[in-house]
Amino acid sequence: MDKLHQKLQQDCLLVGRFSLCQLLLMKDANYPWCILVPDRENISEIHQLRKSDQLQLIRESSILSAALEKAFKADKINVAALGNLVPQLHIHHVVRYRNDKAWPGPVWGAFGMKAYSEEEQQSVVNKLREGLGDGVEFLL
Amino acid sequence: MDKLHQKLQQDCLLVGRFSLCQLLLMKDANYPWCILVPDRENISEIHQLRKSDQLQLIRESSILSAALEKAFKADKINVAALGNLVPQLHIHHVVRYRNDKAWPGPVWGAFGMKAYSEEEQQSVVNKLREGLGDGVEFLL
Repeated sequence: MDKLHQKLQQDCLLVGRFSLCQLLLMKDANYPWCILVPDRENISEIHQLRKSDQLQLIRESSILSAALEKAFKADKINVAALGNLVPQLHIHHVVRYRNDKAWPGPVWGAFGMKAYSEEEQQSVVNKLREGLGDGVEFLL
Repeated sequence: MDKLHQKLQQDCLLVGRFSLCQLLLMKDANYPWCILVPDRENISEIHQLRKSDQLQLIRESSILSAALEKAFKADKINVAALGNLVPQLHIHHVVRYRNDKAWPGPVWGAFGMKAYSEEEQQSVVNKLREGLGDGVEFLL
């Protein structure tokens, strides 16, 4: 079990686990925004993962993207491995709407984080649980 | 053979073909910046690709990322499927340096495109050719 980088611990909630990745929710109510963190040490780029992990990563990423699209009626899913600030490999999955705050720009660096109320956060987690089903072990 | 979206035709150079994806170079000398476009019709999200294409996509993406990292001595590769403006699925692969113009922010929407000189462009294409070798059919 890989330790989460401090910045991910601070900005995110650990929601559950896929077979390869930890599933995080960004504490930013501006957009439903999940992050996958492969449970491997000292990896900062997708191509550094062994090949079988790369294949598992795109499977989990696609399961998550499809679930987000459906559960949140997304106009678009933005999928990105950036990591300019946090070296631990993590893959953003952001639900975008044509009328969201940053559209059509990228969300990174656009606006400050907006806190969830407890109810809102639980509602998002519930939607994730319903959308993802048995492929994910939920911790919340 | 899928037609390229007009905006991709305008902003990019078709450099070559992987087995699944067309390989484009963004005409932006600010960063070595490649784009993979899966040669499939009416796809706007990775999860809409059939599973075998998803696996081929991450293989080609990782081959490209590793080649970019090595050929351009990158500090980081930013890999992203955004598509808020161009619906045809395309995956950015951007070479980032700690001293590049937009670091540590994202490149999208940060600065206007900077034209390559013919020599610079050919030098980038040559590096891609050397880095990628036989897995890609080069057109330039």
